[in-house]
Amino acid sequence: MFYSKLYAPTLREAPSDADIISAKLMIRSGMIRKVASGLYEFLPLGLRALRKVENIIRREMNAAGGQEVVLPLIFPKELWIETGRWNVYGKELFRLKDRKDAEFCLAPTAEEGITDLVRKDVKSYKQLPVMFYQFGTKFRDEIRPRFGIMRAREFLMKDAYSFHADDADLEKYYKTMFDAYTNICSRCGFKFRAVEAASGAIGGSFSHEFMVLAEAGEEEIAHCECGYGANTEKAECLEIKYPKETENAAAEVYTPSIGSVEEVSKFLKISAEKFIKTLIYVSDGQPAAVLVRGDFEVNEIKLQSLLGSIELSLADDKTIEEATGAPCGFAGPVNLKKKIKVIADLSVINLQNAVVGANKKDYHLKDVNVNRDFKYDIAADVRKIIKGDACPKCKTGKIDFARGIEIGHCFKLGTKYSKSMNATYLDTNGKENLMVMGCYGIGVTRILAATIEQSHDDNGIIWPDNIAPFEVIIVPVNFADAKTKEATEKIYKELSSKGIDVLIDDRDERAGIKFKDADLIGIPYRITIGEKNLANGNVEFKARKNSKEAVELLKPQEAVNKIISIYKR
Amino acid sequence: MFYSKLYAPTLREAPSDADIISAKLMIRSGMIRKVASGLYEFLPLGLRALRKVENIIRREMNAAGGQEVVLPLIFPKELWIETGRWNVYGKELFRLKDRKDAEFCLAPTAEEGITDLVRKDVKSYKQLPVMFYQFGTKFRDEIRPRFGIMRAREFLMKDAYSFHADDADLEKYYKTMFDAYTNICSRCGFKFRAVEAASGAIGGSFSHEFMVLAEAGEEEIAHCECGYGANTEKAECLEIKYPKETENAAAEVYTPSIGSVEEVSKFLKISAEKFIKTLIYVSDGQPAAVLVRGDFEVNEIKLQSLLGSIELSLADDKTIEEATGAPCGFAGPVNLKKKIKVIADLSVINLQNAVVGANKKDYHLKDVNVNRDFKYDIAADVRKIIKGDACPKCKTGKIDFARGIEIGHCFKLGTKYSKSMNATYLDTNGKENLMVMGCYGIGVTRILAATIEQSHDDNGIIWPDNIAPFEVIIVPVNFADAKTKEATEKIYKELSSKGIDVLIDDRDERAGIKFKDADLIGIPYRITIGEKNLANGNVEFKARKNSKEAVELLKPQEAVNKIISIYKR
Repeated sequence: MFYSKLYAPTLREAPSDADIISAKLMIRSGMIRKVASGLYEFLPLGLRALRKVENIIRREMNAAGGQEVVLPLIFPKELWIETGRWNVYGKELFRLKDRKDAEFCLAPTAEEGITDLVRKDVKSYKQLPVMFYQFGTKFRDEIRPRFGIMRAREFLMKDAYSFHADDADLEKYYKTMFDAYTNICSRCGFKFRAVEAASGAIGGSFSHEFMVLAEAGEEEIAHCECGYGANTEKAECLEIKYPKETENAAAEVYTPSIGSVEEVSKFLKISAEKFIKTLIYVSDGQPAAVLVRGDFEVNEIKLQSLLGSIELSLADDKTIEEATGAPCGFAGPVNLKKKIKVIADLSVINLQNAVVGANKKDYHLKDVNVNRDFKYDIAADVRKIIKGDACPKCKTGKIDFARGIEIGHCFKLGTKYSKSMNATYLDTNGKENLMVMGCYGIGVTRILAATIEQSHDDNGIIWPDNIAPFEVIIVPVNFADAKTKEATEKIYKELSSKGIDVLIDDRDERAGIKFKDADLIGIPYRITIGEKNLANGNVEFKARKNSKEAVELLKPQEAVNKIISIYKR
Repeated sequence: MFYSKLYAPTLREAPSDADIISAKLMIRSGMIRKVASGLYEFLPLGLRALRKVENIIRREMNAAGGQEVVLPLIFPKELWIETGRWNVYGKELFRLKDRKDAEFCLAPTAEEGITDLVRKDVKSYKQLPVMFYQFGTKFRDEIRPRFGIMRAREFLMKDAYSFHADDADLEKYYKTMFDAYTNICSRCGFKFRAVEAASGAIGGSFSHEFMVLAEAGEEEIAHCECGYGANTEKAECLEIKYPKETENAAAEVYTPSIGSVEEVSKFLKISAEKFIKTLIYVSDGQPAAVLVRGDFEVNEIKLQSLLGSIELSLADDKTIEEATGAPCGFAGPVNLKKKIKVIADLSVINLQNAVVGANKKDYHLKDVNVNRDFKYDIAADVRKIIKGDACPKCKTGKIDFARGIEIGHCFKLGTKYSKSMNATYLDTNGKENLMVMGCYGIGVTRILAATIEQSHDDNGIIWPDNIAPFEVIIVPVNFADAKTKEATEKIYKELSSKGIDVLIDDRDERAGIKFKDADLIGIPYRITIGEKNLANGNVEFKARKNSKEAVELLKPQEAVNKIISIYKR
């Protein structure tokens, strides 16, 4: 395609309300325009990239046996009443009335629609499992639309729903979809992690978020090079083992008015890693002592989940004194005044010659040893993960932290929707059963934003090979020159015949402007045809991701072959 | 693809609310399902056909230099206030509010959106002309949604908008788009007519409707084999010439109490074709006599347009007597009592020896001749066209009537939207001008319904080659038979390698059921592989459109070659 025929108005500056690098660059490169808060138009370049992402996803959905469908965008209230979501879903749901005052919503997801579709025609175990997917506009009335198309009110989503005879079949299929999502992320060129996550308003019992690692991410995740990833609040911490030491005799030390681990450590000149911090919590009215290493923090989400507590909080001073016999700052596991539950984090159960509070004002105990000097009731992972912790998956890698952009989500929904909507099938014995469901979403438009967050430089976007709106840009320095034109057209023809998307910058502009635009819109490979080089039988080849200097002089055919081999065409 | 892996639940009976053959067949063949009044789901087969139509349209839009974009579906009220459509558009417009009570509509068309997009970035004549198109869901709260996806409340539309420096450029481009629409209709396999039409609520001064000829059409059109088509109310009638006769002397004849042409014709034994019917109209208060041949009817739309009248009606008895001197039934152009305007239809200006009312109770005149016995003020086409009339375009063909389904519409919008939204550009002299606009819509989902209305039989759909969800269905009578399976796979492979969409009916069903389903879903070509035929080296080949009996026995390779040659792959 000729650049002169392409509507791609580039801007020197992004508008002031573009609040994130991907939004700035998509607007500057003429890929999107803003209509109103959270509402965007896609221009040709943006749409081309979007369609590439769509096709990557479609291919994987088809490979996973999916059936592509299109559901309406407006859904009647009645279906949403059946599942109860009409009343539960808050202001994020756009609602409207028709001319007869019947109520509808603009679908933010389509569980109701798809379950209604399935219950109409699927009656027998022979028709199961079945998976449906669609690419559809979704609507969410965000309280604060921002970040360009990343958190828009209208966006393109691929949503998929699978229906199964039983849990076992769903679990098996979940793995297939998990792999499909992994493939999609890889083909989009993402550095990403599949993160175990708690489910949101959609419901269900088990789920993974697919997180693209990028500064602009709204969530913090702990990850390892081995592929492990988890929300930092859910990331597992392993049991810590220490070199064997000779156990010394425990001894009381005077620590006048010094309570915090940091102060005591400094005072005693003993590293905080040798401390056992004792925190008194109250779980549903019952006090409990929680022991973590001095340099770690308690993860209250893990603790709450361990204890099954409805209400959990740190104890007040009075409760601490009643339980330990000492004021706050001197609690320890040895000789607690009151018999309370003692929970030892996996960081302390192997600690030797440790420092603990003495349960006595202004005193600590040193050289305390677990089992010898005190016993615990439960050993469990109840601490916050930190950078450098051992990876719970590969055991050898070190945990690092990153921000993540959620671009996909796999859920096991179970029978939440099939139950409320009575989606049943007859099994081999003619018995009626509820179908078991999974659901799988991807923010298609969001993938573009996430890609740019992860892949850009000061000059603009750096599209990954597979989702670039054009794969190659040919820049004839002077397209009016007959030989340049001929060489341009020859290269164009050869690449196009292999199905490679080529843009020719035929504009009557200076080379500098053409390079700037090419960099801004981020085409992965550039072939520059200058008269002088051409006279020597050469063209310039440059990959967008490489630095300015990494320009190669190649024969035109070499440049063509190089691109064909990159794209494996 | 294997039929067993395809979700295409076929039904023996259509639901009772399917009110048109295309709706019945799309539901029975598992292409669509109804969610609620005017809201439909597309299942895989329907979606495949839809995508084919989309691609036919996309190809033509790109060839016409179009820029594909995607606009939001929700638009803020402010844009619609600018053009005044917020207040003009009635209950068909779905309106909604966001959480901040800001008002929006669901776009039924996108003139506001596209004009807003263009005025942001198009500033110079150098950027014109430019044409944008999109495939987008459209919403119209129809007062009576019906006819399946033909008149739905949510549907897929391709809407396109062009922007020009002046009228001349638009007129030139309009022709390009007209041709593109003609190509689209041809490639979809339609019998169709491009019909000049008055514009609706969208506005504009000139427009064509693309009408598919089918019984279920909501409009009546006059058409000729030469390609001419027009709304019957707008179709032009040519001047009629008659063989030269000797002019007889006019004579009064007594026609007691006989007023109507039919009665007088019978009474005088003179054909109605020799009568000049004189009707007295009142146009904005002024009476006028309108003369048409006895066997024709006055077309009041043409008359009103000719006279430029705001109010037009047949005169009452008193006005008739005042103008003619006789009661209703005896009016004629000779010796009118009052000097009123006489308008002669092109069917009477050449009539010789005609019968007319005598402007005298119970009398007619015969052998009246134009110019000799009376004069008229205006000769014009003011009659209704009838079947058998000469075609106004080719002059030789005969007009026939048909019902038409409107699937597309081309409009010259002019400056209606650019003016209200201030979409201007600077011309070569640096002067600010309004852009001139055209708009071009196609009902993409409606095309599927129109296709089926035009192409079906008692057994089901007959998809045209280019938009069939699958192009070939292979029916192995017994897929469990190893040789059958091998032959099936070989044919499948060869056809697929040419990009032909093949469905293999691998289901464990009787051949009769497979044939019934293949006919119902309407795959254009069927290859049946039976063990007995295969033993003789043959397979059966049948085109869906041909009768049951038209089955050919071919070698597998012959069948493959035949299909490849049909699809020119």
